[in-house]
Amino acid sequence: MRIKNLRKLMQKKNLGSIIISHPINRRYLSGFQIEDPQIGESSGVLLISQKHNILATDFRYAELAKEDTKDWEICIYQHNFFEEITELLKNMPSPLGFEALHLTYSAYQHLKETLKEKGIPLDIVPTEGLVEGLRKIKEDSEIILLKQAIKMTEEVYIKLKTFLNPGLTEKEVAWYIETQIRHELNAELSFPPIVASGYNAAIPHAVPTEKRLKTNEPIIIDCGLRWKGYCADMTRTFYLGKPDKKFKEIYNLVFEAQKLTIAQIKRGLKTYQVDAIARDFLKEKGCAHAFLHSLGHGVGLLVHEAPSLSPRRPGETLQTNMVATIEPGLYLSGWGGVRIEDMVIIRENGCERLNKLSTNLKDWVL
Amino acid sequence: MRIKNLRKLMQKKNLGSIIISHPINRRYLSGFQIEDPQIGESSGVLLISQKHNILATDFRYAELAKEDTKDWEICIYQHNFFEEITELLKNMPSPLGFEALHLTYSAYQHLKETLKEKGIPLDIVPTEGLVEGLRKIKEDSEIILLKQAIKMTEEVYIKLKTFLNPGLTEKEVAWYIETQIRHELNAELSFPPIVASGYNAAIPHAVPTEKRLKTNEPIIIDCGLRWKGYCADMTRTFYLGKPDKKFKEIYNLVFEAQKLTIAQIKRGLKTYQVDAIARDFLKEKGCAHAFLHSLGHGVGLLVHEAPSLSPRRPGETLQTNMVATIEPGLYLSGWGGVRIEDMVIIRENGCERLNKLSTNLKDWVL
Repeated sequence: MRIKNLRKLMQKKNLGSIIISHPINRRYLSGFQIEDPQIGESSGVLLISQKHNILATDFRYAELAKEDTKDWEICIYQHNFFEEITELLKNMPSPLGFEALHLTYSAYQHLKETLKEKGIPLDIVPTEGLVEGLRKIKEDSEIILLKQAIKMTEEVYIKLKTFLNPGLTEKEVAWYIETQIRHELNAELSFPPIVASGYNAAIPHAVPTEKRLKTNEPIIIDCGLRWKGYCADMTRTFYLGKPDKKFKEIYNLVFEAQKLTIAQIKRGLKTYQVDAIARDFLKEKGCAHAFLHSLGHGVGLLVHEAPSLSPRRPGETLQTNMVATIEPGLYLSGWGGVRIEDMVIIRENGCERLNKLSTNLKDWVL
Repeated sequence: MRIKNLRKLMQKKNLGSIIISHPINRRYLSGFQIEDPQIGESSGVLLISQKHNILATDFRYAELAKEDTKDWEICIYQHNFFEEITELLKNMPSPLGFEALHLTYSAYQHLKETLKEKGIPLDIVPTEGLVEGLRKIKEDSEIILLKQAIKMTEEVYIKLKTFLNPGLTEKEVAWYIETQIRHELNAELSFPPIVASGYNAAIPHAVPTEKRLKTNEPIIIDCGLRWKGYCADMTRTFYLGKPDKKFKEIYNLVFEAQKLTIAQIKRGLKTYQVDAIARDFLKEKGCAHAFLHSLGHGVGLLVHEAPSLSPRRPGETLQTNMVATIEPGLYLSGWGGVRIEDMVIIRENGCERLNKLSTNLKDWVL
């Protein structure tokens, strides 16, 4: 189905064949789960035409490639990647698209020159966002995995309710979360957990520190579990003690901004219009200056993917079965911050909230 | 010093300025420690000429950039990366080099077009491996950090001697190693630990499974701790029980191959000649076919970097203060394998072994 959709796109763009090097796109199309080992190292590429679907990888991944994929021809390259890849491209139709957002300038040049040296008459043309465009619209099987990832993430948040205590450091809490996700639940992290308490909670992308949790300060916890490749991303702001007036006010503003957005988001809106639902509300309340980031972002095999729910124009139009986070936040330097984040899936006339746990303040005061 | 060396290289290559996008090269030159958040996302670039050294990053990393760097001008870009970067490049001399092994084709095109649109008369030219070339030769301060990383890794191996027991799964052992490194020692992993027992030890790059450790089978453990950015990489093959004749024979071949290489490696040898020391020895013994990978690789801020001690020609010539792993291994399908890995630094007339723990079989039989 995915490969069929890509082939339709290739016809529309007049591409005879395409080389897929982006590891997440490679996984999406073929099922081959292996990530790239380190920056500048690849675990393989896909070579696709209307007739071919080849996964080319190296000997280390030969067995895993067979296990992970169905109906893909597995080719193993030895030492000279470009030499052997171009050999496989020999009988594919021109032009050959490549992923310009992923392939390095050097790899592009090398590929082009090797084709030329070998007299293979393939024109090579840049493409952008073809597979990313398919990935934006989630299939039912992907939604099931996203829901599972969220459910398991919520189990961790429930455990946090008994684990969190004054005196623990942010790092200890982050390690607890990681232990729950990776060791207890046998899953992956979507990203390193954010645990930001007190003044640290004023930094939207805080890194956990040795600061100890205290009573009567906000504690932002933003984390997610990755299940069979699919990422959850969720935030709650906890409070140990009895919330004071200021915290309640700020919490309530973020709570209302999120609720409003989830009530109004739907297919057909532009991404900047969705951002504006929350931002305009906070503006009315005189605190839009403290909302330091975009409202949300797409989520799937990557924790940050399209669509970006940012205030920037021209943005893009929401479509049915896109999945995104809705995560307004307010950050006050020196004091702290509040962020609440759920994931939603865009439906015909609104959205489905994928999270089950409430966002009510009383449920996060311990 | 590093920036001075780069400037000399730039003069030699007739580069007026250079843009550094590779996150490890960015860290090496500036000290800015932040990694890139995910594939396709950047935490910043360096813009360097004989007179300028600018670190351009986004608002999220502004504070950390100031903390991490000395004598760098920190510029914060907002939303339009290329627009704002080219503004900073306005007064820099032509031509502008870029890192062709890292910059994507798309980013290259975007940069080129933005310069053109704005009428900035900078030619833009690909470079390869300039900073990587500097990184190959380790400074004293880097050697100190590498030694610390190895020492802390060896502490973990010593703990493994009491932790390893029949019945533990490979995954449990890998998690124990990760807990020791990240939670107990407050460091990072150089890479996810490899724990491969019995038949799994026949796969050089095995991923830990639910297989339980048993007596009387080889257990390959390959892991490393990353300390202040610098990676250790070390392997020992453990054995629970009383080694049989076959294991002792194979262990001894790998042991001798490694010992021989460490005794003979020195400045001036070609990388393939170093690989051949071990490979020819194993060939004589009739088992070179079971040595499935290169002899070793450079290590530093990345766990895999130049020089590659591979059998491939033309290779490169070893220089004083290069650091590399020496890791021969023998792998027998169905039975298992043995690998022994230490790190060495190339000296004038030989090498210094950076590991302190022995490679004697008796020390790894539990």
